[in-house]
Amino acid sequence: MSKRSPLAPAGYPEMPPVAGVRLATHACGLRYQGRDDVLLVELAEGTAVAGVLTRSTTAAAPVLWCRKALMGGEARALVVNSGNANAFTGGAGEHAVEQTVEGACVVLGCRPNQVLVASTGVIGEPLPFEKIAAAFAELHLSLTENAWEAAARAISTTDTFPKGCARRATIDGTPVAISGIAKGSGMIAPNMATMLAFVFTDAAIAPGALHVLLSAAVDRSFNSITVDGDTSTSDTLLLFATGASGHATIVDAGDPRLNDFRARLDEVMLDLAHQVVRDGEGATKFVTVAVSGAEHDAAARRIGLSIANSPLVKTAIAGEDANWGRIVMAVGKSGEQADRERISIRIGGYPVAEVGAAVPGYDETPVAAHMKGTDVEIAVDVGVGEGRATVWTCDLTHGYIDINADYRS
Amino acid sequence: MSKRSPLAPAGYPEMPPVAGVRLATHACGLRYQGRDDVLLVELAEGTAVAGVLTRSTTAAAPVLWCRKALMGGEARALVVNSGNANAFTGGAGEHAVEQTVEGACVVLGCRPNQVLVASTGVIGEPLPFEKIAAAFAELHLSLTENAWEAAARAISTTDTFPKGCARRATIDGTPVAISGIAKGSGMIAPNMATMLAFVFTDAAIAPGALHVLLSAAVDRSFNSITVDGDTSTSDTLLLFATGASGHATIVDAGDPRLNDFRARLDEVMLDLAHQVVRDGEGATKFVTVAVSGAEHDAAARRIGLSIANSPLVKTAIAGEDANWGRIVMAVGKSGEQADRERISIRIGGYPVAEVGAAVPGYDETPVAAHMKGTDVEIAVDVGVGEGRATVWTCDLTHGYIDINADYRS
Repeated sequence: MSKRSPLAPAGYPEMPPVAGVRLATHACGLRYQGRDDVLLVELAEGTAVAGVLTRSTTAAAPVLWCRKALMGGEARALVVNSGNANAFTGGAGEHAVEQTVEGACVVLGCRPNQVLVASTGVIGEPLPFEKIAAAFAELHLSLTENAWEAAARAISTTDTFPKGCARRATIDGTPVAISGIAKGSGMIAPNMATMLAFVFTDAAIAPGALHVLLSAAVDRSFNSITVDGDTSTSDTLLLFATGASGHATIVDAGDPRLNDFRARLDEVMLDLAHQVVRDGEGATKFVTVAVSGAEHDAAARRIGLSIANSPLVKTAIAGEDANWGRIVMAVGKSGEQADRERISIRIGGYPVAEVGAAVPGYDETPVAAHMKGTDVEIAVDVGVGEGRATVWTCDLTHGYIDINADYRS
Repeated sequence: MSKRSPLAPAGYPEMPPVAGVRLATHACGLRYQGRDDVLLVELAEGTAVAGVLTRSTTAAAPVLWCRKALMGGEARALVVNSGNANAFTGGAGEHAVEQTVEGACVVLGCRPNQVLVASTGVIGEPLPFEKIAAAFAELHLSLTENAWEAAARAISTTDTFPKGCARRATIDGTPVAISGIAKGSGMIAPNMATMLAFVFTDAAIAPGALHVLLSAAVDRSFNSITVDGDTSTSDTLLLFATGASGHATIVDAGDPRLNDFRARLDEVMLDLAHQVVRDGEGATKFVTVAVSGAEHDAAARRIGLSIANSPLVKTAIAGEDANWGRIVMAVGKSGEQADRERISIRIGGYPVAEVGAAVPGYDETPVAAHMKGTDVEIAVDVGVGEGRATVWTCDLTHGYIDINADYRS
């Protein structure tokens, strides 16, 4: 991996086993040399799955496959490769997915629609699926409950650190585990922002309820982050529930026995989403944008994303410049209602603008000091209503240009 | 001015006088030292005006003024300053506009609603309008028909070259002039993309017809360019018709006597818009994105802008990398209809992808050579309908970061 992001967490978290989940990785040499690039996850019989996929109209072949497979709501396997996105590869791309799925079915003894797949990497080049197919026997032999960090590394592309998060929850008195891994550091924007994230639990939750839980958690996490406003053709977020913890299966997402689980799931998803932002290509600042006073929550989120996606705001933050005029600009271009005479802006908690103009006697010193830190907090009230949202992003730096001006070469 | 953009035209064009238009510039020291920063344009009695202004909900005080003044459809003066946008300045901003307008009224003997104003520069700082007011007498004395280049320079901020374009047209046998100036190199995106542009003609056209002509020309020019997707709070485009050429006033925009004028006006506006892109902050490539096969023309333009605004596409172009996978991504995220199985992409005229996959035996050599030039042409057919549009942008480089990470300091 490249030099670790300055915003990375101290180390990889402890990730205990999740009953019913075994993982294995392998170096198939799809693009990278000397590192694992394929992940196989084996899931216990009876595992439920829910997913949220990119809304791109040019979605990759694995995404199209998952859309179909998710209808069954059952999963026995997940196969992920890095280095090649198998996107815009036409009929050959679909064939590559089918062959990969077939390979997993043979070693795990399951049906094709119980196999989920995801690919990330370069678009438009044929996926050498034969290399993946040839590795299944060995992958199967090396399945273990403990390969969480290896799994996170195997699915990485330009990531500078592996991403994982684990929590414990209780459902109806039974302890359950929730563990997730993610990858992504560019081409990150809502709908979806993943790029790839896979969350596993040994809770027993029916697919329909699982989907409701996942959708709600996505809005507050992966759909509230942005690095560059670009949406991948491959964004995939899957939530697997093996049911191996032993409690009675819950079929209603509104069941109060899920309250603790829901809160912990939110934590895992938000933590993973934040790690993706912290690994934003070239990022040197982690930026929180809290919007209040909007017409409604969705308007607040759109205003927040307008700020978070603005190249002028992001370059100002990179330059440690408290250029709040650009924040006003970004509010204005969002298209959402804002009362020009009532807008107020705080940076790092310090008021910089109130009731539509600069704060009288504004002292930039503490704000400038805040901007020099790695965590920048922007709060904007647009003075219209009660809508609120928080979104997260990073700054736009020379590092982003370096990484993306020659990613392929 | 900073080092001239590598995409700049060879020199400033010859700009002959436009009957009924006199210009003067002055160094008021609003922000910059040692350069003119205020432009006064005197317009003959009976001048009609039409305008298109930013749709930002946080529009600057001068924009709010112009919205009102344009209702009258008459103009006797235009006052423009650079260095300070008089945006997000609350009641003080409105007062500054009123005082500036009053100053122009005194020297030119006109009514307030015949004075148009525009300001560009830093947001959120009070405009020292006294300095402008104190300069009116001198500005008035130095009015001349020939200060076109000085005018373009006076309204510049981060521009690296002054922007002007002049054409001759014929209306009903009478020769008329069309001359325009513009500024802008960042915070450039449609709705509007100007940032500031002022076009003058001695044709005699009623305000209503003038507005129709302007709106149509804007869609094909300033609303089809983007540098960074950011929309200014100050975008202002004004078209003045003095009527001094002497032909009978035309009141219907559909009048066939306007055919030549319309075509030449389009040329001026498109040329100015292209100059803005060629001065895109940090730009090293002028990029034309032609989209065809879309559901309708508006969809084609949105797809084009999705490509033209994508940081990943723009950094790839900066890196001279024919990474067409990112173009596919940008088509997909536009939200517009596209047939994944029928998309085709050409770069520099060379097919790189057809019917939803890479061209068989794709030879990157000529495409790579094209990418090394300063003019990059991307053509995308999305395989759905007959909609077409062309948009223009520039690449995203280290220069953009350099300029914007410390613009204020």
